[in-house]
Amino acid sequence: MEAMREIELRGHIIDSFLLPKVFDKVMDMNGEFEIIEFEIGKHKTDTSYARLMIRGKDQEHLDDIIGELHRLGAYVPEAEDAVVAEAPKDKVVPKGFYSTTNHPTFVKVDGEWLRVKNQKMDSLIVLRNGSAACKTIGHVKKGDRVVIGNSGIRVVPPERPRGHTIFDFMGSQVSSERPSQSLIREIAEEIFEVHESGGKIVVVGGPAIVHTGGQQALAELVRKGYVDALLSGNALAVHDVEYNLYGTSLGMDLKTAELAPEGHKHHLYAISEITRAGSLKEAVKQGVLTGGIMYECIVNNVPYVLAGSIRDDGPLPDVITDTMKAQDLMREQVKNADIVLMMATMLHSIATGNCLSSSVRTICVDINPSTVTKLMDRGTAQAIGIVTDVGTFLPWLAEELDNLEKSRKKQMPALRVKSKKR
Amino acid sequence: MEAMREIELRGHIIDSFLLPKVFDKVMDMNGEFEIIEFEIGKHKTDTSYARLMIRGKDQEHLDDIIGELHRLGAYVPEAEDAVVAEAPKDKVVPKGFYSTTNHPTFVKVDGEWLRVKNQKMDSLIVLRNGSAACKTIGHVKKGDRVVIGNSGIRVVPPERPRGHTIFDFMGSQVSSERPSQSLIREIAEEIFEVHESGGKIVVVGGPAIVHTGGQQALAELVRKGYVDALLSGNALAVHDVEYNLYGTSLGMDLKTAELAPEGHKHHLYAISEITRAGSLKEAVKQGVLTGGIMYECIVNNVPYVLAGSIRDDGPLPDVITDTMKAQDLMREQVKNADIVLMMATMLHSIATGNCLSSSVRTICVDINPSTVTKLMDRGTAQAIGIVTDVGTFLPWLAEELDNLEKSRKKQMPALRVKSKKR
Amino acid sequence: MEAMREIELRGHIIDSFLLPKVFDKVMDMNGEFEIIEFEIGKHKTDTSYARLMIRGKDQEHLDDIIGELHRLGAYVPEAEDAVVAEAPKDKVVPKGFYSTTNHPTFVKVDGEWLRVKNQKMDSLIVLRNGSAACKTIGHVKKGDRVVIGNSGIRVVPPERPRGHTIFDFMGSQVSSERPSQSLIREIAEEIFEVHESGGKIVVVGGPAIVHTGGQQALAELVRKGYVDALLSGNALAVHDVEYNLYGTSLGMDLKTAELAPEGHKHHLYAISEITRAGSLKEAVKQGVLTGGIMYECIVNNVPYVLAGSIRDDGPLPDVITDTMKAQDLMREQVKNADIVLMMATMLHSIATGNCLSSSVRTICVDINPSTVTKLMDRGTAQAIGIVTDVGTFLPWLAEELDNLEKSRKKQMPALRVKSKKR
Amino acid sequence: MEAMREIELRGHIIDSFLLPKVFDKVMDMNGEFEIIEFEIGKHKTDTSYARLMIRGKDQEHLDDIIGELHRLGAYVPEAEDAVVAEAPKDKVVPKGFYSTTNHPTFVKVDGEWLRVKNQKMDSLIVLRNGSAACKTIGHVKKGDRVVIGNSGIRVVPPERPRGHTIFDFMGSQVSSERPSQSLIREIAEEIFEVHESGGKIVVVGGPAIVHTGGQQALAELVRKGYVDALLSGNALAVHDVEYNLYGTSLGMDLKTAELAPEGHKHHLYAISEITRAGSLKEAVKQGVLTGGIMYECIVNNVPYVLAGSIRDDGPLPDVITDTMKAQDLMREQVKNADIVLMMATMLHSIATGNCLSSSVRTICVDINPSTVTKLMDRGTAQAIGIVTDVGTFLPWLAEELDNLEKSRKKQMPALRVKSKKR
Repeated sequence: MEAMREIELRGHIIDSFLLPKVFDKVMDMNGEFEIIEFEIGKHKTDTSYARLMIRGKDQEHLDDIIGELHRLGAYVPEAEDAVVAEAPKDKVVPKGFYSTTNHPTFVKVDGEWLRVKNQKMDSLIVLRNGSAACKTIGHVKKGDRVVIGNSGIRVVPPERPRGHTIFDFMGSQVSSERPSQSLIREIAEEIFEVHESGGKIVVVGGPAIVHTGGQQALAELVRKGYVDALLSGNALAVHDVEYNLYGTSLGMDLKTAELAPEGHKHHLYAISEITRAGSLKEAVKQGVLTGGIMYECIVNNVPYVLAGSIRDDGPLPDVITDTMKAQDLMREQVKNADIVLMMATMLHSIATGNCLSSSVRTICVDINPSTVTKLMDRGTAQAIGIVTDVGTFLPWLAEELDNLEKSRKKQMPALRVKSKKR
Repeated sequence: MEAMREIELRGHIIDSFLLPKVFDKVMDMNGEFEIIEFEIGKHKTDTSYARLMIRGKDQEHLDDIIGELHRLGAYVPEAEDAVVAEAPKDKVVPKGFYSTTNHPTFVKVDGEWLRVKNQKMDSLIVLRNGSAACKTIGHVKKGDRVVIGNSGIRVVPPERPRGHTIFDFMGSQVSSERPSQSLIREIAEEIFEVHESGGKIVVVGGPAIVHTGGQQALAELVRKGYVDALLSGNALAVHDVEYNLYGTSLGMDLKTAELAPEGHKHHLYAISEITRAGSLKEAVKQGVLTGGIMYECIVNNVPYVLAGSIRDDGPLPDVITDTMKAQDLMREQVKNADIVLMMATMLHSIATGNCLSSSVRTICVDINPSTVTKLMDRGTAQAIGIVTDVGTFLPWLAEELDNLEKSRKKQMPALRVKSKKR
Repeated sequence: MEAMREIELRGHIIDSFLLPKVFDKVMDMNGEFEIIEFEIGKHKTDTSYARLMIRGKDQEHLDDIIGELHRLGAYVPEAEDAVVAEAPKDKVVPKGFYSTTNHPTFVKVDGEWLRVKNQKMDSLIVLRNGSAACKTIGHVKKGDRVVIGNSGIRVVPPERPRGHTIFDFMGSQVSSERPSQSLIREIAEEIFEVHESGGKIVVVGGPAIVHTGGQQALAELVRKGYVDALLSGNALAVHDVEYNLYGTSLGMDLKTAELAPEGHKHHLYAISEITRAGSLKEAVKQGVLTGGIMYECIVNNVPYVLAGSIRDDGPLPDVITDTMKAQDLMREQVKNADIVLMMATMLHSIATGNCLSSSVRTICVDINPSTVTKLMDRGTAQAIGIVTDVGTFLPWLAEELDNLEKSRKKQMPALRVKSKKR
Repeated sequence: MEAMREIELRGHIIDSFLLPKVFDKVMDMNGEFEIIEFEIGKHKTDTSYARLMIRGKDQEHLDDIIGELHRLGAYVPEAEDAVVAEAPKDKVVPKGFYSTTNHPTFVKVDGEWLRVKNQKMDSLIVLRNGSAACKTIGHVKKGDRVVIGNSGIRVVPPERPRGHTIFDFMGSQVSSERPSQSLIREIAEEIFEVHESGGKIVVVGGPAIVHTGGQQALAELVRKGYVDALLSGNALAVHDVEYNLYGTSLGMDLKTAELAPEGHKHHLYAISEITRAGSLKEAVKQGVLTGGIMYECIVNNVPYVLAGSIRDDGPLPDVITDTMKAQDLMREQVKNADIVLMMATMLHSIATGNCLSSSVRTICVDINPSTVTKLMDRGTAQAIGIVTDVGTFLPWLAEELDNLEKSRKKQMPALRVKSKKR
């Protein structure tokens, strides 16, 4: 028996392609729609409003359609409270659970719209003590009150930014044919502005940063305060230590690009020296480690998470070998991030992307276009991809930030007090 | 003060490029060499012998050179026993430790040459109770008797195979321009022969096997006994389960390549159903999981290791979240492997490559040539790379194995008893 | 002084994202818009209509905006005739010329809308004897009557197809993680249907088709009538001939993947033998060439264009060494094409893409995702990319077409008369 | 009936892997060898000598083996004169012709060893008026005296350089994980040295140089004299002109990475303006073109070849649309080149590689590792590949050259007169 239900769309529904996407989805799923009411904003600052009647061939079909429209940002006008069910077991979802997007989401509880905390994709919404939060399936506990169905849920997809920013590339094809230096300049400006306004910048990096010779530039960024947290793994830290102790990375002299004699041992010596000291922090305290990315993080109190992987040698005492624990710590660090800069790592980039709200500006730098494509395929569609060589990217970025600092100093000779907003 | 020392080379030293490599290395390091004795095998079955005097500008320089020559396969004729030193601390190496290659290695203890067990690269050699074994730095315990220096050590680099096999490509450039079907046929023949003779075949696989539609072919390979161990992660197992429960992989219907309605939930449902059952094995026992790669592993008693990673959702109860523990289990499985077939995973391929002796035939299949390049850069130089689409590769491989079985049956109508050599 | 002008939108303007794209573009260019009239189709079969007032800060600004909206599909309601100017010189464009998209376009001449012939991107529209046609800049002659400005021009962007077809992937990210065999099956179905209904299928192919062992499958496709024209270069033809005369491709035996003795000469012998015969056609007639892709083209009267490139050895007598002449011949062959299947060639794919209307279903198969990305970057946005190995793709495609033929035969045992629609 | 023949090896036959390669090849081809005489150089400056008896199962088998050994550098001691046969027809090779490698080659004529001119791979050797030269098959004329068989021919494979230079990477895997800035510094040093000593530097470049924003750096290199010839195509020149006339490349503003309004027309306007002027040179003379790569070539008398391709729009009047004629001109320019720097173009790189002797230092810079792999697959094995972003590579290269100039000036304040050696 045919079933029908009204939905509403509100906001920049045309500008954001919301309306056509809703039409599309209904037609793709063989449903029907009828426009009940439609007010279009006549100017660019106006929002629009539409009310549509959606029809499915039976209740289940209708529910399927409404479920998909929800994910796009449509909502049911006479919204009832969200429905919850208890998790039957640790890490087991209740039937019909609501699977989150990475867009900001609200859930109606006792007649009030609560913003869902820790928004991230492919999670469940759990209600507790009058608040709602995303939980990954691995954190679901027996008895958790999990939101099911689509009632009482609103998704707010990101408005596309007006005024040119680097993020206008959002969603564009990943291409290596862009003016590299101009892009780097724009990224530098974004980072500079976010830093100046007290925002949070998270860097996610792989070991190729060291292999390709970008470690000094990254260390400089940390020293100058442009990095508020570093997410990486054992390899980057070991190579960074190796370079600072022996001038090599996996035995290759980074100045001459030659293999150093006995260089193949440096990697294990680096691990060994840090282990002997007790930890990276201890190694800095004892004067063993005197420079580099990890050193700068430690002396500048920049938190870092070194997540373990099955490729690791050692690993360093600082590495979190339990992947679920490492994931939790990473999630903690990206909370409130304004910019996430991912460089030369597919594993950490996708893992971090999974934890991010779509409202976080995400830049993924890799020489391999497929890293960016995969990141987007896995749902981090807000990422902009820069296909370039991290070994030339980082030095340019450092230079551009330098230039911005100099021109800022000229403009504002008086003392400025910088305060973090968090 | 100039220092000098004799070394010997024995075996197919010209054919295997050992002699020229030794000359090269000495010259690269600014040492001198003189040929004392040289007998070349006059026919292809003969081995050759050379004795060389190596000179360095001082003892340290000479030691550096001898150290490098050791890694190539040269050895000191009047070999004394290997020298050992105790590890000063857990995970801390003694000064001057010997860092292993992945070539078969012998160490002289009490006048006898012991074969080093569990050969793998970038490890230490630890002596214990009259035997010698590789230990990764992470397993070194305080007081372990670690081999240092180069005395009493012999490295035997692999002879290059004679007679055409797929492994003649060894060391060749990684190229996508090879006759794909011919290569697949040759790999099928290698696998078939190893299987017939009771050898051990280890498969290392990534989730793209399922995304690209290769899961049925791999399940078939497991069912027919061509897989003796499977090394993978949470994602492959979850996608495999999702496909078997819902016909989708990350929500995409693998028959139509369309996103299924509500398909985005299937991924979490799959994890949830296995968690509810308790484990993959329990899910098979309870009739929840009735087909696919993991199902075939379980009903055919093929051991598997699902190693955790920070990208994991869930993860499944069967996943080893501690990366060091997972590494140990992987190392266990590749012992005595004759062939390792790596497909569509950089993380697991490099991690497995780190555990392999160079005498293991290693095939790496990936659509991205850089996966193979990185695997070789990381030391697994014996790997041959096949740049192709695993979604078409696996079905062809299964078909070729089928053809080989049929032609074998015709040749040998009588019953054959297959016995594993181990 | 502010300037304003009305535009109209008609058709599936929401469904095709036309309306939001128009809003976007106006805002991006800092113009203003006001909706005068808006009738939305209430069901999916209805078309919609909108009338908008566009405002610019002066006439030039307005013209710029209107120019861009034109390219999207908007048009000026009280359309006057298109304005023309004469080309001042061979290959020199008149100021303000209209630069075409690859969408179907109409031009108003003497009050009538003429469909522009030979639609392709980045061309000029030239009027002559009451008809309008695209001309590339290289074909513009002094005195040609070239359309300038935007008046009297209508662009009709393609409707997105309803009902699932392979072309629903249109515009999606280029990914290697799709179910390969399912995609190949769908492509086979498209090709089969187009062939059955008398449509035109053009194949564009590079030499890797032969290197990777796909030549027999492609020859089979030609023989069975699935190829109505072949666009390629010297290398594919030479390798095809080499394989058919000597069993090798660039000296590599395609059966064993080994280099054949003296194989490096086969390439030049192949060129030499065809040159001796006079041409490929003569070589077939004289019995020199007895199989392969080119042979099948010749005996089945399938036209081919072998375009010259600076990489060519020889080249064969059949190769068009003048690139502009070759381009003209290629353009001729893709006229009225229904499907263009591009395989393993960036040069020919982009060159062909430049000649295609966006209404032609375009499939680009390459192991390198950047080939597809570049094709789209260059404007062939309708292309769908399949990232796979052409050496496994072609045999599967041939097999799928075979299956379709068999199942068709079962359904329709009676004789069918096939007639080409052109 | 078994056949046998003596061959000789002379030079750094072990160091260059020549001896083991000969042994290998004989065994691979199922021949036999016996060492008759063998004197090994005892120090690194000494050359070695070996005389071997090669046996085949019959004369044809032996000839096949000897043919392959020739290509490696072996030669027949009692060398008779080379044997010649006349080409039976234009572009038709005589039976048994000798197909060249790209290594320096000598041919014995009337008892004297002549160095073959214009050495390049896959060509024929034609004798004329007491000299010998390579001819491509396309240039062979009826009656040309073509060398056949292997007698009287000596190939001299390159000695591997001693002392560290960038070219030590030669033959190594193509990897993106190298210290980028160090590599660029070493390339700068090579270019600087070659330039200082009056050597010849040829640049081969694709349009991505302009898209990625590297055009100013390249223009600077031309202006300063670091480019002695430029090989490219229509696209690079058109984009360069477009950037200099309008600040865009294919309509994208290279300063902001945004599409400029009406920018899609700039490409055709650029072609049109040059066509109106008559040629690039005329455009410079008339003051139409006032900067950029092509401008600098013209005002600094640096010869350029713009080779036509089927992708071309226009093309510019300066483009050689006949590919065979373009190839001839390219070949002319690379004669006597000391360094060839290839950037961001697969087509032109492979085409140029085909014309180069293996003694020319060849650097291939591309963001796509497969460009380098294909270049090597096609025979240009001496190329070293730098996997990086040409948009960041070129500015760094220009900066490093700048630094070298400054430090040179300090060292040598007096006037230096630079003289080209040619």
